[in-house]
Amino acid sequence: MIHYKAIAKVMGGLLMLLGLLMLPGIGFSFYYQSGDQMPLIYSAFVSMAIGGLLFFSFSKEDQNIRKREGYLIVALSWIFMSLFGMLPYLVSGTLINLSDAIFETISGLTTTGASVLNDIEALPKGILFWRSMTQWIGGLGIIVLTVAIFPLLGIGGIELFVAESPGPTSDKLHPRIRETAKRLWYVYVGLTILCIGLYYLGGMDFYDAVNHALTTLATGGFSTKNASMAFFDVPFIQYVAIIFMFLAGTNFTVIYFGIMGKFDRVWKSDEFKAYVLVVALIIIGLTIPVYFIGGLELEKAFRDTAFQVVSLITTTGFVTADYTSFGHGLTILFFLLLFVGGCAGSTAGGIKFIRHLTFFKNTLLEFKRIVHPRAIVTLKINNERVTGKIITHIMIFLLIYLMVFVVGSVMLSIVGYDMLTSFGAVATCLGNVGPAIGNVGPLDNFSFFDPFTKVFLSAIMLLGRLELFTILVLFTPYFWRAN
Amino acid sequence: MIHYKAIAKVMGGLLMLLGLLMLPGIGFSFYYQSGDQMPLIYSAFVSMAIGGLLFFSFSKEDQNIRKREGYLIVALSWIFMSLFGMLPYLVSGTLINLSDAIFETISGLTTTGASVLNDIEALPKGILFWRSMTQWIGGLGIIVLTVAIFPLLGIGGIELFVAESPGPTSDKLHPRIRETAKRLWYVYVGLTILCIGLYYLGGMDFYDAVNHALTTLATGGFSTKNASMAFFDVPFIQYVAIIFMFLAGTNFTVIYFGIMGKFDRVWKSDEFKAYVLVVALIIIGLTIPVYFIGGLELEKAFRDTAFQVVSLITTTGFVTADYTSFGHGLTILFFLLLFVGGCAGSTAGGIKFIRHLTFFKNTLLEFKRIVHPRAIVTLKINNERVTGKIITHIMIFLLIYLMVFVVGSVMLSIVGYDMLTSFGAVATCLGNVGPAIGNVGPLDNFSFFDPFTKVFLSAIMLLGRLELFTILVLFTPYFWRAN
Repeated sequence: MIHYKAIAKVMGGLLMLLGLLMLPGIGFSFYYQSGDQMPLIYSAFVSMAIGGLLFFSFSKEDQNIRKREGYLIVALSWIFMSLFGMLPYLVSGTLINLSDAIFETISGLTTTGASVLNDIEALPKGILFWRSMTQWIGGLGIIVLTVAIFPLLGIGGIELFVAESPGPTSDKLHPRIRETAKRLWYVYVGLTILCIGLYYLGGMDFYDAVNHALTTLATGGFSTKNASMAFFDVPFIQYVAIIFMFLAGTNFTVIYFGIMGKFDRVWKSDEFKAYVLVVALIIIGLTIPVYFIGGLELEKAFRDTAFQVVSLITTTGFVTADYTSFGHGLTILFFLLLFVGGCAGSTAGGIKFIRHLTFFKNTLLEFKRIVHPRAIVTLKINNERVTGKIITHIMIFLLIYLMVFVVGSVMLSIVGYDMLTSFGAVATCLGNVGPAIGNVGPLDNFSFFDPFTKVFLSAIMLLGRLELFTILVLFTPYFWRAN
Repeated sequence: MIHYKAIAKVMGGLLMLLGLLMLPGIGFSFYYQSGDQMPLIYSAFVSMAIGGLLFFSFSKEDQNIRKREGYLIVALSWIFMSLFGMLPYLVSGTLINLSDAIFETISGLTTTGASVLNDIEALPKGILFWRSMTQWIGGLGIIVLTVAIFPLLGIGGIELFVAESPGPTSDKLHPRIRETAKRLWYVYVGLTILCIGLYYLGGMDFYDAVNHALTTLATGGFSTKNASMAFFDVPFIQYVAIIFMFLAGTNFTVIYFGIMGKFDRVWKSDEFKAYVLVVALIIIGLTIPVYFIGGLELEKAFRDTAFQVVSLITTTGFVTADYTSFGHGLTILFFLLLFVGGCAGSTAGGIKFIRHLTFFKNTLLEFKRIVHPRAIVTLKINNERVTGKIITHIMIFLLIYLMVFVVGSVMLSIVGYDMLTSFGAVATCLGNVGPAIGNVGPLDNFSFFDPFTKVFLSAIMLLGRLELFTILVLFTPYFWRAN
């Protein structure tokens, strides 16, 4: 039996929090006299009222969360937050179609950053701030998931690589999780404030600095400008963005150890080492052709390339340059970056380095196993043995990820979109990135899609953000049949 | 230490056989007075002379074949046969560029069927027959590999599903293999002769019947007509082709049991059941939209669809209709068929049903494992337990296959071909199919590619035909370091 009361109580708590986080935007509404305070107040009130009703209707004894409730809570959290999170758009009339509102809200909460808005700068300041806030909330949510929920559910096979996770020993939420979660929130909030300061120092006004810092740390990519980060053509600002996108794509536990000065712990992470090395190599490798084909100055070529590489790999999606303007070869290479993803335990989406690393190392070892069939060849990551169960799980993840990409692209092609647009839209939504190729390139948006496709792509974003299994398991009989 | 003498002796034997199989074409040269007998005689003589030299220089004591020699023999067999197999093209002046000759020969020997010839019908009859013969030789070769070599090497993780294979118990070639191999050759030769008879009965002349039967049973797809099988717009011939392509894509051991009347053994094969079911469902599923979009009569829509589906799934590559003319959706669906492949133990290339089946079933079970982490959930195929080692191996194969596809496509894009052409060319070469999408659609050929790309695509064909691992392992230090 599933404890629906427990689930309802958690949803109630979430909605109250969501309503609360709608309030700061009202400050900007009044400051800029943008006239959008009423929709925000109304939305916040509705969210908090319904949230409170759900939360206080059920006693603490109802809070019996086991594994199965865990799955439903994860899936329903994002769905409930989306349903109420789109209220400001609808009530203010910023987006009048339900499919547009769903898409923009889920794109925010999943930290994707794909948009259906044709003129972002025309939005009232309060609503625009809420748009950025949805991404920051999504980033916060994913930290909670990674630290507290995924280890309990055994999802994605990466939980064991997020340092200090308690491991799947208990069937109940572990008290130590609170400590870990608190630390990571400090890192998240601290870096956000630091980022606001640096953007402001670089010349952004306070409003833009806050908005962009929220979406940078969430690896979201929503901007307050139609031209995205290309608007701020100031080297200092763009380098700050590169550094903070990179940090936001790093395992927050690793950052915490870095801040604490425990550099041996930082360097013990094979994923972090791979992340630093691969990102550096890709930036160098792509700067050279961009420099020669683009005809830019070297610094500009380097900055644009580094920005786009880090933006796509960390699944942020800010844009400073059109990477599809350098010919087929570079376009496809930038397209492939949609399949990288940041580190586990960061706010980045996508496949993530730890999975690539596990697959890559294990495949090398497989050749050793072929040549020496009787030898015992074990995979080690972070100096610890990785079990066959985890390796299998990670490879299944990779294959399902690619299958969802293919099936999704086929769906869009059947609806009638050309193949590159279909590939691009699905890849960028599944990886929670934002821009892609085809008609959803770095200078385009998603407004031209039909309502069905917008909702379909929203579902793809959710599927990607929640590490596939969490959602897919709900569609198997095993889940519902279990007692 | 690697026993190069043993390898050389095997190569010698192969070249003698290759030279011998060049002789039948001379009959057609004389009959049609096409004037290409001398190039064929010369090529046959060179192959047999050098082959004989290699074979008789080494005594039987040198024939010490172990696992490591096995890998080299597999890779070198196709390379040696290609080097001598292209002599007829070069000596006759049919193809004057080395890259063209390499491409056409490897496309034949790997049973791919992609061609660089602009006017096939202009070729002299003897050379044209040799072209078809290369595919039949390739089909023969792959049967030997599957039955005799792969089980010894433990390659591809599918050896255990090819019924009655001896299993990796011994490090030496098993004597029972000869029996199994002989049976399968009987099936291969018998079906080829039957197919010749039926094509002839349907109205082909003897020459066309022989040529098309050779390339049908090899799932090769080379035709003697520029319009491929569309030239023979006779329902009887095209239905015969559909049936024999389907048979050629079936595990030959299963066909053998069928011929022997042991239908319980036929129906015990989960792969065969999946093959029948999936092919039937895809044909039905695609006939409907082709019927409505194409505006054809129902029988014609069904025949065209069934033909193209079976041709692509079995990696044959004959063409009767342009499947890229029905819009984005159907094009991408037909494109996906390039990633299916026939059954293990057939002459078909590609991923193959047994791997899809293993992945599909195991992924379903993975969700059961997620919900019940303490339960022991085992995968069964053909009523037998599949070990974790095999499952891992198959998933690594799938992921490497996709990686080669991606890396190959990127290479072609960097050279400057558009993305659809790049995707299509690499997918069809890797799967040993023939036609694809983009500029290598069903009505196009591969002549426009530059020499580098032709050689590159030839390497991709070899990689696909030899189940990836056999070739890739040669590039690892483990192989060369082993003692």
